[in-house]
Amino acid sequence: MASRITVLGSGMVGYAMCVDLAGQYEVTAVDRDPDVLKKFEDTDIRTRVADLSEKESVLEVIADADLVIGAVPGFMGARTLRSVIEAGKNIVDISFFPEDPFSMDDLARQNEVVAVTDAGVAPGMSNVILGYHNNMMDIQDFMCFVGGLPKIRTRPYEYKAPFSPIDIIEEYTRPARYRVDGRMVTAPALSDPELIDFPGVGTLEAFNTDGLRSLLDTMDIPNMKEKTLRFPGHITLMKALRETGFFSDEAIQVGDHLVKPIDLTTKLLFPLWKLEEDEEEFTVMQIQVQGTEDGTPKNYRYDMVDHFDADSGFSSMARTTGFACTAIANLVLDGSFHRKGISPPEYVGANTGCFDRIMGYLADRGIKYVITESNG
Amino acid sequence: MASRITVLGSGMVGYAMCVDLAGQYEVTAVDRDPDVLKKFEDTDIRTRVADLSEKESVLEVIADADLVIGAVPGFMGARTLRSVIEAGKNIVDISFFPEDPFSMDDLARQNEVVAVTDAGVAPGMSNVILGYHNNMMDIQDFMCFVGGLPKIRTRPYEYKAPFSPIDIIEEYTRPARYRVDGRMVTAPALSDPELIDFPGVGTLEAFNTDGLRSLLDTMDIPNMKEKTLRFPGHITLMKALRETGFFSDEAIQVGDHLVKPIDLTTKLLFPLWKLEEDEEEFTVMQIQVQGTEDGTPKNYRYDMVDHFDADSGFSSMARTTGFACTAIANLVLDGSFHRKGISPPEYVGANTGCFDRIMGYLADRGIKYVITESNG
Repeated sequence: MASRITVLGSGMVGYAMCVDLAGQYEVTAVDRDPDVLKKFEDTDIRTRVADLSEKESVLEVIADADLVIGAVPGFMGARTLRSVIEAGKNIVDISFFPEDPFSMDDLARQNEVVAVTDAGVAPGMSNVILGYHNNMMDIQDFMCFVGGLPKIRTRPYEYKAPFSPIDIIEEYTRPARYRVDGRMVTAPALSDPELIDFPGVGTLEAFNTDGLRSLLDTMDIPNMKEKTLRFPGHITLMKALRETGFFSDEAIQVGDHLVKPIDLTTKLLFPLWKLEEDEEEFTVMQIQVQGTEDGTPKNYRYDMVDHFDADSGFSSMARTTGFACTAIANLVLDGSFHRKGISPPEYVGANTGCFDRIMGYLADRGIKYVITESNG
Repeated sequence: MASRITVLGSGMVGYAMCVDLAGQYEVTAVDRDPDVLKKFEDTDIRTRVADLSEKESVLEVIADADLVIGAVPGFMGARTLRSVIEAGKNIVDISFFPEDPFSMDDLARQNEVVAVTDAGVAPGMSNVILGYHNNMMDIQDFMCFVGGLPKIRTRPYEYKAPFSPIDIIEEYTRPARYRVDGRMVTAPALSDPELIDFPGVGTLEAFNTDGLRSLLDTMDIPNMKEKTLRFPGHITLMKALRETGFFSDEAIQVGDHLVKPIDLTTKLLFPLWKLEEDEEEFTVMQIQVQGTEDGTPKNYRYDMVDHFDADSGFSSMARTTGFACTAIANLVLDGSFHRKGISPPEYVGANTGCFDRIMGYLADRGIKYVITESNG
């Protein structure tokens, strides 16, 4: 009998994962919104309407699952993950919650649960790739550039949010932590802008964001940095909005009311940032790993550019994020990755067999990483 | 006995005018705010506290005036002007109200009142200069570039508002009317950006604003345009704010409240735009008049760059605006300009004697217009 997978959250990415897994497994798609589940009507994917912010609901919909995939919004991600771990179910999660996942490590180990967190593209594949090389070389420098962008560039922002726009503004406000010469450095988000040419894409603007997450805990690499990519000019606008106070959540008196500027800003900005269905977008990622391997200098660069897929209707963000997650889900289901506890994806990539299978799984789905090696 | 002048509104510009006129005339400074009037304590300028939005108050404080100067905020300017005209008092006004001044022309002529409106720098001196040349040549092209800017450029806006910031945002939203080949053209504010180098200032960014005002009615010139100057980059930010809806005065639902975006925006923006006392700023204006004079091609260019005056403490905006107004006030008081009715400053400049006296008056106060002539 096919294994049973329950996917919690059936948004853009959740949907792509359900479809991807349905050929091989018995998939149940869960969402709070019945309308979101209508798209499964002509498939053999089962659907359940459930409020996943309620622990009881979570326990009920995962009761018969062999594996759970977490794809709920970030703000409820940690709570949902805890419920799944408490139920003793293995989980691969892409909800990118702000809390520290390792706070649930003891619980997961006690319950003998395999829980892979941040299992998307970045975080996600960036961690897998770093974990893989870290296992085989002495890494001095890790650099990750990543961005999801619309194909059609519309002023002023030239940006569409492929996931929750409030999470994007969070990226523009939360200070970025990175590592320089072994020391942790904190810089404002949107700092250190630089223009970089990406083949087939053109010139993009990179800036600091707080994207290293678990790598700051798990990796003993002296230099690590993550930067987000946008079309040039975006930073200037975002910094101006931030510096003027439009992203502030401190209420100010406006006429007779107390208003949080961020509430008005999101109301105005999000219609402009809404990625329309079938609107073409793409994902760019470049990862650089530099150090010594077998005593000699060695650099690896991974370049990935993935586009909206008109045939499937899957956005690039859904493909690159979702299929990284389903690749890992396969490894957990068949026992290839069986480490108990909380495992960020660098732990998965550290297993060479797992790494090769993930890369093959993505290649089968048209997501290509071009690897460039050089000796220093 | 010296003539008596009542100055309505004693803000930054009103104050400079009172001080300028006090040597020669009996000056009364009026303001709603007693604190604003404290700066006159050690002078022989008389002060009156009065709410100038009340017609009775206006009539009372101007009762014994030989001439009135109007320097109230734009939104109450038209009402105040009407009260003064109804009282039969001559007035020179810089309140730059949005209403059409010619709607009061009949009233002013009936009451035999000399009323000069828009008597500042631009509108004001730009009109005076155009009126002067229009009297002597066949003008094909009129172009006015003007801006008031802070000496210290602070990101992101690199701008400080020398007058009411809400009037600045009005400049960025009200469509600009200008004339091309004899036809009226309307373009969005902030449109047609161009970078222009100004000697001693550097590169500034010029864009369309709705600044021609009375000239669209009084001048039969086929090409006329007015552009505002800012440091480069300002337009991009202002357009982004406008296009996102931050300047909208249509209330939207934010949480439990209906909020007008402009109300929140001004609350956030104005502290950043506040010109601090003694903060150095400057005014740049370039006027181009092109056409034929005595049958041959003739171009005139006027360049004015005026700086904050540390000795007097007068800002450049107060000097260039206020002293244009006091120059004209002198002409009205001594009967040199005696046209009854509403007169925009182009009517004053059309009188060669008046033009020369205004230019001399400004030169005496260190405001220099460099005039460049060429034959085509």
